Amino acid sequence: MYRVCLVGFGYRGRYLLQLLQQLPSVQVVGIADPQATESPGDEISLYNRGDQDYRRMIEHERPDLVVIASPWQCHTEQALYCAKAGIHIALEIRGGTSWEDYTPLLEVAEVAGVRIYPLENTVFMREVMAIGQMIEQGVFGEILYLRGGYRHDLRHLLVSPSGELGGEGAEAAWRVRYYLEQEADLYPTHGFAPLALWARLRREEEIKRLEALASSSRGLAAYLDRYAIEGQRPSILTPDIVTTQIETDRGILISLIHDTTLPRPKSLDYEVQGTKGIWNADRRALYLEGMSPEGAWQTDEPYLQHYLHPLWRAWGEEALRIDQHHQGMDYMMLRTLLEDLAHPGLYPTDLNDLALWSSITPRSAASLARGKLRN
Amino acid sequence: MYRVCLVGFGYRGRYLLQLLQQLPSVQVVGIADPQATESPGDEISLYNRGDQDYRRMIEHERPDLVVIASPWQCHTEQALYCAKAGIHIALEIRGGTSWEDYTPLLEVAEVAGVRIYPLENTVFMREVMAIGQMIEQGVFGEILYLRGGYRHDLRHLLVSPSGELGGEGAEAAWRVRYYLEQEADLYPTHGFAPLALWARLRREEEIKRLEALASSSRGLAAYLDRYAIEGQRPSILTPDIVTTQIETDRGILISLIHDTTLPRPKSLDYEVQGTKGIWNADRRALYLEGMSPEGAWQTDEPYLQHYLHPLWRAWGEEALRIDQHHQGMDYMMLRTLLEDLAHPGLYPTDLNDLALWSSITPRSAASLARGKLRN
Repeated sequence: MYRVCLVGFGYRGRYLLQLLQQLPSVQVVGIADPQATESPGDEISLYNRGDQDYRRMIEHERPDLVVIASPWQCHTEQALYCAKAGIHIALEIRGGTSWEDYTPLLEVAEVAGVRIYPLENTVFMREVMAIGQMIEQGVFGEILYLRGGYRHDLRHLLVSPSGELGGEGAEAAWRVRYYLEQEADLYPTHGFAPLALWARLRREEEIKRLEALASSSRGLAAYLDRYAIEGQRPSILTPDIVTTQIETDRGILISLIHDTTLPRPKSLDYEVQGTKGIWNADRRALYLEGMSPEGAWQTDEPYLQHYLHPLWRAWGEEALRIDQHHQGMDYMMLRTLLEDLAHPGLYPTDLNDLALWSSITPRSAASLARGKLRN
Repeated sequence: MYRVCLVGFGYRGRYLLQLLQQLPSVQVVGIADPQATESPGDEISLYNRGDQDYRRMIEHERPDLVVIASPWQCHTEQALYCAKAGIHIALEIRGGTSWEDYTPLLEVAEVAGVRIYPLENTVFMREVMAIGQMIEQGVFGEILYLRGGYRHDLRHLLVSPSGELGGEGAEAAWRVRYYLEQEADLYPTHGFAPLALWARLRREEEIKRLEALASSSRGLAAYLDRYAIEGQRPSILTPDIVTTQIETDRGILISLIHDTTLPRPKSLDYEVQGTKGIWNADRRALYLEGMSPEGAWQTDEPYLQHYLHPLWRAWGEEALRIDQHHQGMDYMMLRTLLEDLAHPGLYPTDLNDLALWSSITPRSAASLARGKLRN
């Protein structure tokens, strides 16, 4: 039985708890969140006496694993504390914003023999894992082009029901600050993490060239205009659309998009293209030369089934049943993580990956700034 | 009755002839192509005595309009000759490769009072024209992001049936040269022309920033490897995938892709995104906030029908019947062109547009070269 604690009990923390409670060998013993008012269960102690109360929880509960799902700016500090205490960490996306932000944590974790699991759930999607198997087995030939991104309308998370940016009741009021302050791809990992794995990109040095470009920022202002609220409109720095193009040492071109302030259906925009064929996630279709009908898309399902990842073969049925909201990927992630505690090596990513993925934010910011300088 | 001559009688010229013969008020009187062996009709004179024989045709036939559909490298010279002779020109894509290449032609055409019609058929697609109407009427709100490109597997055009790059029987043997010599987006206009019109981008100076990135070039080599042919593999300079990102003065981000040497179904990859919604061509779907079901794609057909362009209302039925191969867009283009001869102002683009569109090739090449320099 693993004793597990949670730091951060917002939208994301609540969902993770619900899944953890349905996993074998897990006993959630504590939750720390300064804004939580009530424990979600009799056996779960609540630590809500301020921002630092999570430390008391760690000392008191001595958990085997801490799940960190607090606001971004708290992640690395909290993780450092847990690592020093010798406790394994499941780390939500995204804490640091550059490789450097994670450096102390990487060092402490190594000395303490602590494992840090990035909770990037897109890596565990059924389609993503199956396509990964196909890429590894050469089904798409040599990979040349990968596309992906975070295309998710977050305006309702950032604006309160009464129409205030970050106001009372906004689901992620803390997140607004980043939109005011950063001209960058704010949240690269959902799109980038699978692409980086598919491209076998593990170190920043393997990025040969990176350029980000951007549109204006109009989406949030247009959204706020619906409400008749007096006073100044805050000036939003984050562009509605940021695209980041990356050339890797292996000759792969990666296209990333960040698109979170315009009305649209959700999409991760994945595409994989090689010398033997192409897969497009939004169409749920692929084309493989010599196998698909000449020049025509074919539904990907029979292929995904054929190349299903072993973890999905093992736990896919329960993942889809228990984690309907996220099509099984969150369940699969936590299940793999727990298995990895006992049998290290199963979890497909580590803190180095997270640091690489997160570095897209400052690098896209730098490219946008360079572009302005040149104009 | 307009007397029309054709310069260039390859794959493209043949199809244009077939359409011209079904248009009202058109009499095709001559065809010039050094490789043509037979006239396609009794009333059509054939001029095939070498590269310059088109000049004899112009002098002899004195047409009202010349359609130029020869290999790219011949376009501007032939167009200049026709313009000097005071004859209107329908100009296939793409002749010049930069604004400068078209400068003499622009000047001569103006002095001679000659109209030059770029034959960029994607501008005349039913969907493209309807979406243009929707953008103009503000249905998508303020436009922030436009995506498009030329994603068309051309390997069979470039490689002969016996497996030689540009060899005997390759449909566009002349085109191979560009793949050997240019590291660039070789053919931007199919993707870019509609985007430029939608973005109201008419002058190069309105491009604030442009960056192209690229993958390796492996597609043609992998294709040639299927044939057991002796000797050296030519080295291909054009990358399999080139993406070009453009920021415009109006704050619109444009994403272009060039993708012609990998196996895939055809796509122009169009997407239009604004403060009120999004359209995706590949899905043939749109999302308009407050109109579409919350967060869900909706088929675009009822909207396209509602916002159908007046030219499609007038000639859509005959376009679809006569030009099935290209879903009516070539017919619509030629029909509009002929109407414009009598009533100038109807044709939506001119040589300035073509020069702007074509300039993506040298600008993408320059950006790729700058990127290498920086590495």
